[in-house]
Order: sequence, then C-alpha cells, then structure tokens
Amino acid sequence: MGLAWHLASRPQGPLKASDFELKEHKTPPLTDGTLLVRNHWLSVDPHMRSRMDAAQPYIKSTYPPYELDVPLEGAGVGQVIESRAEGFAPGDWVGHYAGWREESLLTPMTCWKLPSDGLPERSYIGLLGHTGATAYFGLRAAEPKAGEVIFVSGAGGAVGSTVVQLAKLKGMKVIASTGGPKKVELVRALGADIVLDYKAGPILDQLGAAAPDGIDVYYDNVGGDHLDAAMAVGRVHARFSTLGTIENYNSGKPAELKYLLNVVAQRIRIQGVVATDYIPEFPAFRQELTGLIKAGKLKLEETIREGMDAMPTALMELFTGGSFGKMVVRV
Amino acid sequence: MGLAWHLASRPQGPLKASDFELKEHKTPPLTDGTLLVRNHWLSVDPHMRSRMDAAQPYIKSTYPPYELDVPLEGAGVGQVIESRAEGFAPGDWVGHYAGWREESLLTPMTCWKLPSDGLPERSYIGLLGHTGATAYFGLRAAEPKAGEVIFVSGAGGAVGSTVVQLAKLKGMKVIASTGGPKKVELVRALGADIVLDYKAGPILDQLGAAAPDGIDVYYDNVGGDHLDAAMAVGRVHARFSTLGTIENYNSGKPAELKYLLNVVAQRIRIQGVVATDYIPEFPAFRQELTGLIKAGKLKLEETIREGMDAMPTALMELFTGGSFGKMVVRV
Repeated sequence: MGLAWHLASRPQGPLKASDFELKEHKTPPLTDGTLLVRNHWLSVDPHMRSRMDAAQPYIKSTYPPYELDVPLEGAGVGQVIESRAEGFAPGDWVGHYAGWREESLLTPMTCWKLPSDGLPERSYIGLLGHTGATAYFGLRAAEPKAGEVIFVSGAGGAVGSTVVQLAKLKGMKVIASTGGPKKVELVRALGADIVLDYKAGPILDQLGAAAPDGIDVYYDNVGGDHLDAAMAVGRVHARFSTLGTIENYNSGKPAELKYLLNVVAQRIRIQGVVATDYIPEFPAFRQELTGLIKAGKLKLEETIREGMDAMPTALMELFTGGSFGKMVVRV
Repeated sequence: MGLAWHLASRPQGPLKASDFELKEHKTPPLTDGTLLVRNHWLSVDPHMRSRMDAAQPYIKSTYPPYELDVPLEGAGVGQVIESRAEGFAPGDWVGHYAGWREESLLTPMTCWKLPSDGLPERSYIGLLGHTGATAYFGLRAAEPKAGEVIFVSGAGGAVGSTVVQLAKLKGMKVIASTGGPKKVELVRALGADIVLDYKAGPILDQLGAAAPDGIDVYYDNVGGDHLDAAMAVGRVHARFSTLGTIENYNSGKPAELKYLLNVVAQRIRIQGVVATDYIPEFPAFRQELTGLIKAGKLKLEETIREGMDAMPTALMELFTGGSFGKMVVRV
C-alpha cells in the first residue's frame, strides 16, 4: 500500500502538474523471496523526462518509455518493513529503482543493501548511486588527462557538479557552464577555473573566449548549442562524452549543429555513456568515491525537497534551473 | 608555368563558375632539392568545398581555408619534367597534393614516387590514394565485424562505393544509400544488400524499414538527415565513423538532429576520421588494396572528365550527383 506517482498523460513540451497523478498503489501480498520497503529518499533525474515520451518509431532503446497509469520508476532508498527474502530483515536499508512511491515491493535481484559506512543513506541515490556513476564513468570514457582542458556543461546539476570536482582532482583545467550569477558562484566554489553563464549570452562566444586554444574533453549534459560550441572549439582528437541532451528533452526540437563538420576535421570522438553499463564496476567506484568523500575532497551538492507531493515539481525544477546539485525528495 | 585554377571568391551557397578563375601560374625557377611535375590526373573531392569557406571563429582546424587568388590544392599525379632533387628523374611518376594546376613545383617532402605495379597511375588519387584510405581507415575505425549490419551513405561516391565493397569483403550486411534509380542499380552491382534512394522519400523511413533490428555500424559521408536516421536506428554500442557532411557543405545550414538523445540511450560512438592521420600506415594499406584489386575483388568506380577547363564543373558534379565513384580529371 501507499501513495505512488503515476504518469497520467504523455507531456507535450514542458512538464506540467496535470501530467502526473498521485494515488494509492496496492502492492500485492508478499510471497517467498520478496521484501517490502518503506522509502525515505527518492530521486528525480533529467533522463526521466525522455522516458515520458511515447516510443519513437525505429528507436531500439534499452530504456523503454514509462507506461501510462502505472507508478513511475526511479532511484530510491528506504528501509525494509517486511521480508520473506533471505538476508533481508526489517530495518535494513536498501537501494533500488522502483521509486516515485512510498512503498516498493522488491526482490534481492531488484535491490541491494546499503553499506554501513557512516555516509548519509541519500548518498546512494546521489554521489554513490547512478548520479555519481554517470559522472565518474562518463568522465573516464573521455580519457581525461592532467593538464588538459575540459568543458563541463550543466555544471550546476547533480552530475555536472560532480564532474567539475572529479576533473579538478585529475589536474585538469575546468571550464564549466551553468545558468545565472548565483549558480556561477556555486560552481566556482566547486573549483571550476572558469564558469560561463549561458543566460548571459551565446555559449559559443563565451566558450571561444574562455578556451582560445580549444578544449580536449567535453562532458555533455546539455546537447544543443552547448554541444555545437564544444564541436567548434574541439582540439584535434578531442573526446566528448555525452550523457544527456537536456536542452532537447522538453522542447522536442531537433538539435541544430552548425559545427558538425568540425567533428570530421578535428577527428573528434563522441561517446554516448549510460552508467548502467558499468554496474559490475560499481563496488570499486563506490569505494573510490567514499574515500574521496571521507577525505573531504569531494562533496555532494544537493537540493532537498520535502514530501511525496513535491516530486513532480522537483522534477520540473531540474529543467527550470531551480535546483543546484542533486535533487532529492525526502518522503 | 602553366594554367592553374584559383579561388576567385568565397562561394555563397552552391558553387558557381565565377567562384573560380583559370590563369597562368608562374612557378619560380628550380632550386636545389626541387622538382617540376607535369600533371596528368587531378582530383576533385567533396571536402574541398568546406575549405573554400572563410575560417570560422573559434575553429582550430588543421585544414585551413584555401586562400583567395592563389592556386587551389588537391591530389594529383604526374610525371617529372625537370629535377634538381636526388632520386627523382624526368619521366618518373609522382603523387602529391599541389593539384588544380598543370605543373606543380615539389620537393621530395611534398611528393612521393608511384610504384610500378601495373595499376593505372590515376589509381593513386583514387583507390590507392586519399579516397581509398578514407574508406579503408574510416571503416576500420568503426571496428566492423562479419555478420554485422552497416549503413553506408553516399554510396555512389568515390569513398562510399569503396566502403560498400570493403564491408562486403568483411562479411557484413550492407545497407547503402544513393540518389536516383540509376545509381541505385550501380551500387547494387557493387554488392550492397539493400540500396536506398534518398530522392524517393525520407531516409529515416527507408532505413527503419531496411534495418528493422537496427544497425551496428554507420559510415557517414553525408551528415544531416542521414546521420539523424542512423542515430535513430543505432543498436546498443553502435559505432559511427563520420568522414564528411556533404549535405551541409553547400547549404550552410546547420544539421538538424532529432535523434541525438539516442546516442546517449544506445551508447553510440561517433568518431571523426581523416585519412591523413594514417599516413604511416599507407604502405601497408596500399599493399592490401593492390592485392584485392589484382585479385578482382575490389574495383575503382570512376567518372573521368577531360581537360583543365572541366575542373570546377567536375567538383560541382559531386554535389549535384552527376558522377559515380571517383571523379578524376585528365589534364
């Protein structure tokens, strides 16, 4: 039992409240091998927007669209309240992807026990979860090297704010972009060398001035004009990791790329990255990042919203720029 | 001495005759270490169009724009008529990149001697030159495997027609695109399994129907709607090599990509490729392709135009679809 957010209709353009419906979700009675979890923290992430659209013809996506009128999905952490699964007892903290609801019915295959390492449990839907893994493995895929110049777009977001810190730890020169003077300051405080405000003018002009000798790496959270600008200033054999096209999620507009030819001329590599490809490496990644967090070298920037009611607006804020860092909802 | 084509003005949109001027080009007297070559075959290539535009701000290209009112550059082969360079004697055949002119003044660093292997000399600006290398190394960069599905755009061009044959030799299923029923037949004769006619309807619809299970590899000669369609049907971890955006060279319009998000969702890799990165491997590449040609397994499709006067229109034909295979001009 418990409340769960359902997708009421496929959004047209920007999300609106009526695209969502909060209603009772009956979990079936526990059978052998299942466990029931009361969630305490739920995640909203930009990629959720893209899964709200209907399947496009010809797309062979591994990430199918959300279905209408069933609970939405996403990362969550909570405590076991009832268990018929071996190794899980009431009170245990677990992480899972059956979020957007107060209670989740899980199995040992669809959840994992949080370690008792003293870090806040919500870290496991943030820095030590999919968000951190997206930052970590996306950056790694671009083969970053000390002394190189990286451009990180969407640096005020959960992933971007982590990439900025990881890139600095690698000894890179970091050019970051975000929106508005307040976020510019926050990103600068994370260690970025130059922070561009995309609301202040065309990103191409700003990036061209900030990187007169070009960039070696681009970590793309945005797509659209930011990707185009990165293409324009990419050095020979630059490596781009693309992990989201937030600019095009809501608009439904195609990305307009004027500098695509430069991908050829400069022999740029663009690699799409999804963190779930690296699940076998998650334990090592968590160990490394836990060490950095405990050493005070890496911190999770976060915005916390309160209560189940807040979930749709929390998601919308990711696109309107209302949050900084990881957006989590306490339920 | 001799005639040379000069860039008279930077073209606005599609090329026109008045963008070019044919006039006498005075080569300075030979000094020690130089040689003079009378060209017999000159190449026109799609990428030349992009070098006719002025430099774009922020672009750090290794391939600078052509200068106005100096001879254009491009691949050529000819015979030495005078030499003050060691190892080069009158009558020797050489290849070089100082084309678009009747006579080229060269040094041993800016030219290379053609082997005497019985193949037509013009092969060295085609299958055994930059064109073949673009096909060969571009395909290799996409890590093609037997049994996989490849989509080759611009398959009626010099590079595309070679990629179709090389991919078939690798045991791939080849879906190719070209323009018009006549070229469709010619590409089919090269061994392509399915040939799409982009003039007959939207390429996305055609590719979606031709590749119901998606594609593993895309060899991009076109950009624009072809690249977008390939993104739409890319399988998980598909590899794209992009070697030209012919669709956008002339139009000056940005590429509009609706399916960019699929690069993320499917973890697609896009690699820009330029053949000159592989010059150290050219001898091995030439040996392999010479073997395939002599064994009758690979053939150079070509369109021959006659005389210096024909060069600008030969180049224009690459964009209007007037040629099939490699366009060479006998001068």
